Amino acid sequence: MEKILIEALGLVAATLTTLSFLPQVIKTYKEKCARDLSTWTLICFFIGVIMWLIYGFMIPSFSLICANLVTTILAGILLVFKFIYRSKDSNTI
Amino acid sequence: MEKILIEALGLVAATLTTLSFLPQVIKTYKEKCARDLSTWTLICFFIGVIMWLIYGFMIPSFSLICANLVTTILAGILLVFKFIYRSKDSNTI
Repeated sequence: MEKILIEALGLVAATLTTLSFLPQVIKTYKEKCARDLSTWTLICFFIGVIMWLIYGFMIPSFSLICANLVTTILAGILLVFKFIYRSKDSNTI
Repeated sequence: MEKILIEALGLVAATLTTLSFLPQVIKTYKEKCARDLSTWTLICFFIGVIMWLIYGFMIPSFSLICANLVTTILAGILLVFKFIYRSKDSNTI
């Protein structure tokens, strides 16, 4: 029973951290401005989740694959936004 | 050998995704502006990593605890910044 509760906690945690980037994608798309988002954070995070995805395929772990596939897509969209809306930015670091 | 390589990949992935928030913290601190950061993303992500941290203590997993402790601190700082620099923001959603 306790084990199920612990795994449920992990599942909720994974869902929250994965879907947490959705409001950022929506906000950035609506406002067409990503000036305050760090380019280095987006690049490092994007590479990191791609590596988690490869790791998920290699172990293999279905949960890791699903969670990181969604996060890779959302982080990738944010990275694209950062470059698309670059012209509006005065500082892109 | 292959197993070591896979675990090394996971370790690099964990380091990248964990430390990726450091440039964002530095940028936001320097510019004193967090207007483009989504409040919902910060809140959901912060709660999510705290749950990962508790999960790490429960399984228990030293790697999960370390990675999520650092991420919790960085995400917490960003959340505090979002509210501190609120007065500068015209849109805080």
